Amino acid sequence: MLTFFDAPVSANTYKVRLLLKQLVIPHEVVRLDLLKGDARTAEYRARNPFGRVPFIDEDGFGLAESNAILLYLSRNTRLLPADARGRALVSQWMFFEQNQVEISIGISRFLRIQKTEAPQVMEHHDARAKAGLRVLERHLSAHSFLVSDTYSVADISLYAYTHLAPDAGHDLSRYPAITAWLQRFRAQPGWFPHQ
Amino acid sequence: MLTFFDAPVSANTYKVRLLLKQLVIPHEVVRLDLLKGDARTAEYRARNPFGRVPFIDEDGFGLAESNAILLYLSRNTRLLPADARGRALVSQWMFFEQNQVEISIGISRFLRIQKTEAPQVMEHHDARAKAGLRVLERHLSAHSFLVSDTYSVADISLYAYTHLAPDAGHDLSRYPAITAWLQRFRAQPGWFPHQ
Repeated sequence: MLTFFDAPVSANTYKVRLLLKQLVIPHEVVRLDLLKGDARTAEYRARNPFGRVPFIDEDGFGLAESNAILLYLSRNTRLLPADARGRALVSQWMFFEQNQVEISIGISRFLRIQKTEAPQVMEHHDARAKAGLRVLERHLSAHSFLVSDTYSVADISLYAYTHLAPDAGHDLSRYPAITAWLQRFRAQPGWFPHQ
Repeated sequence: MLTFFDAPVSANTYKVRLLLKQLVIPHEVVRLDLLKGDARTAEYRARNPFGRVPFIDEDGFGLAESNAILLYLSRNTRLLPADARGRALVSQWMFFEQNQVEISIGISRFLRIQKTEAPQVMEHHDARAKAGLRVLERHLSAHSFLVSDTYSVADISLYAYTHLAPDAGHDLSRYPAITAWLQRFRAQPGWFPHQ
């Protein structure tokens, strides 16, 4: 049996919720309250040393990191290309996501929600997010989805924080190709909104 | 033919240099000078829209992101586990690397070298790096290498910025398990230092 450790506030967990629904994968859910520190307890850390969410446990095999979970659960399905080059491009976009999009939009959004913005940190992440959004905009101006013009786990990965960019102070109307891709994403069977 | 776009100053390119040597993969090198803006030219961006290094071109197939390149070039070799769960754990550590180690150590190191430290930004990345180093220390206290106690591209990925932690102000003597792993890493055939 697959157990999914979820905390709906995180858009990283949203990626996994969406995948589990779109691929109709049977699972049970353990819901954590991050604000109460549920991911920092000794009991949770004994299971998941990263102390973060999402996390899955499949018959004793534990796996952390949202994108690693997406790649693992989508293997041999329509959401992951069958060829090595296609899979390499999916992982390329996912590493870009963790390094340039998730962190910059996610942290700015969190600091704003918490009302603990440190101006230099906000400025630092704003610049990083804008550079990331420009790369996405340019690519999506010529492609309907990120890899091979086909909906894949790369799109699920990038959608999660890109669609939250307004919460981090970015005006997505300046990015028409991204905006059109968000619409195409929402038109996929089984789509549901974050939270 | 494989062309590798390198810029030795970046530890992300070091990962690829090391892999190419350890797997004895024939390739040619194009060396970019990042400080001169070689990665930002229209010509380079036409080839690599991410405008960063490393980048590879294999007979017209372009791939960015250091960890995506490691996964692609190591497929079907001793440096990547043959089973799906082993590969999932390798990618788990690599996403952790890009999200929690590379960015926090890499940016702090860069700002120090440039003497453009913004105190809030340094503090922000210091805390993130320390959390990452603690996770690594705990894992390596019980394992000789990151996945299946066997040297893999996950170790190459994490070594690159972890061994530069002192440049970002972290004292690695506080992390004995990491220090011992760095030694085991350097004992691998074909190892050579960064720069």
